[in-house]
Amino acid sequence: MSDTVVVGLDVGGTSTRATALTLDGRRLGDGRAGGGNPTSHGADRAAAELLAALRGALADTDPGRVRAGTIGLAGAGRLLADPAGRAAFDRAWHDAGLRCPYVVHGDALVAYASGTAAPDGTVLIAGTGAIAAEVHELRLDRVADGHGWLLGDAGSGFWLGREAVRRLLADLDSGRAPDALGQQVLADLLGAPEVAARPRDTVDTLIQAVTRRPPVELARLAPRVVAAAVAGEPAATRLITEAAGHLVESVRRIRPAGAVSPLVLGGGLLTGDTPLAAAVRVEAARRWPDAPLRSAGDGAAAAAWLAARDLPEVADPVALHALIVPTPT
Amino acid sequence: MSDTVVVGLDVGGTSTRATALTLDGRRLGDGRAGGGNPTSHGADRAAAELLAALRGALADTDPGRVRAGTIGLAGAGRLLADPAGRAAFDRAWHDAGLRCPYVVHGDALVAYASGTAAPDGTVLIAGTGAIAAEVHELRLDRVADGHGWLLGDAGSGFWLGREAVRRLLADLDSGRAPDALGQQVLADLLGAPEVAARPRDTVDTLIQAVTRRPPVELARLAPRVVAAAVAGEPAATRLITEAAGHLVESVRRIRPAGAVSPLVLGGGLLTGDTPLAAAVRVEAARRWPDAPLRSAGDGAAAAAWLAARDLPEVADPVALHALIVPTPT
Repeated sequence: MSDTVVVGLDVGGTSTRATALTLDGRRLGDGRAGGGNPTSHGADRAAAELLAALRGALADTDPGRVRAGTIGLAGAGRLLADPAGRAAFDRAWHDAGLRCPYVVHGDALVAYASGTAAPDGTVLIAGTGAIAAEVHELRLDRVADGHGWLLGDAGSGFWLGREAVRRLLADLDSGRAPDALGQQVLADLLGAPEVAARPRDTVDTLIQAVTRRPPVELARLAPRVVAAAVAGEPAATRLITEAAGHLVESVRRIRPAGAVSPLVLGGGLLTGDTPLAAAVRVEAARRWPDAPLRSAGDGAAAAAWLAARDLPEVADPVALHALIVPTPT
Repeated sequence: MSDTVVVGLDVGGTSTRATALTLDGRRLGDGRAGGGNPTSHGADRAAAELLAALRGALADTDPGRVRAGTIGLAGAGRLLADPAGRAAFDRAWHDAGLRCPYVVHGDALVAYASGTAAPDGTVLIAGTGAIAAEVHELRLDRVADGHGWLLGDAGSGFWLGREAVRRLLADLDSGRAPDALGQQVLADLLGAPEVAARPRDTVDTLIQAVTRRPPVELARLAPRVVAAAVAGEPAATRLITEAAGHLVESVRRIRPAGAVSPLVLGGGLLTGDTPLAAAVRVEAARRWPDAPLRSAGDGAAAAAWLAARDLPEVADPVALHALIVPTPT
């Protein structure tokens, strides 16, 4: 039985998760708080969420026992470059009673480590955005896409939502009745699946409904596309296939043909049994037939593992991974 | 010799042009002013530009002689639906000394009429944005695209600029040196064609440079793509071919296969001897081999013709068109 405690945090745009673990795999506590990304929420708000999540994870544990900690964060580089952001995180860490140092890693590395203990491999993440990264000795190396909705994020939730609207607009331009997915998009954006007597009026209203909001909110339509593909709608299935093609193309930019290192799939659109994950797996298996395909899992536990593996008492990081990072089935 | 005078205005985002003509083809005056689109400039500013252009056109002509007028305007429907915008235009018309009524048409109809007198046909416009429209009895009928940069404008100047940046980002992700077009894009956006030691730093800087500005300003890169295609660069030529495919696809949504009515090409990217115009002509000739292909020409003269053709003394509108609307060569 180990007395050493490590802490891991997975900080996302909509939620922050923290976990405290011992090196023999006991889960001492979990904490959850709101989105803690300093870029989107501001450093102070982000630090407050971090603190709330840490207090949840350490509710039953003396923070003085914690020997190491890791924070996984989208845009980690920006935090490190921003003294005010770094100071706010330092303060939260201190206010939680933690005296050990912490390391900040990109969320892509944490997602990777939640799927495998292998030091070298590739991670592909598709949620609202999309990014692929090469991992070398458990550091992010080359990156593809992650360029944001205006210039990239090909195959992401934003991309699926925007393409669903574009297909609907093309149908309206051509005088075709919207298919089932188009009707869902109409209902989501305009409140009802009806097309006006002059379809161009519906086109104009749709464009206004979309442009009134931040563009990234088009990602809210992605679950409609996924559901329509599950229901077997051909147009939705084509979009999913096209998205999978874009995602695998991003991986191809940074991963050699025939590479045999693991490929970890993460993000809301690729974890679990989604049609996009299935399409990416088919395409990835074709290009890298000998590579293990893994799903990203518990980011907070993976962050804790990244913190623990450099401790002197950890002789076998791979065995530790098997012990403390739950494997998605 | 005819005493009847007609006035036409072509109101665009960056300039407003007015012309005063007699029915026997004498050009009495031309006026030019700044962008007069009420949607982008506000109704009062737009009305002031309209007045300045009208005064230029009528400098040597008694405004009381003007019998009819037409204003061609992007977003004409929005002006007509907006009482304040309509009132500002009414005031400008009155302040110019004009006593006759005027009609407001969409700029797409005016572009169409600047290329042909045929009452039925199709117009395709590619500038910053892109739109195709069917014309029936000299009224705009069905429309395709014109959906704006976020959801459409496929094949437009915005689209070319965005794709040029995307190709450059893909090259940087893949570790390839930028081609000549990519170097131009780097120089335009970052001031120098160099790539940082870590190409991802250049990727980040490029994305920041683009997202700092209104997205539509990506259209400023379109002339770079056109120039690179003229110089024979394969990547630029592929982009032009793809853009032409999107533009012709928009036409296809509203124009029957094998239609023989005229197809008028307008907008800065399709008038004149551009590679995009050439690519669209090739593709259009394949799909509609018996249709005359025309270039849009003098929008202000075409607006004046649209105003004149309903006057009782105009017996032959087609002959009048030949007389007063210069034909682009």
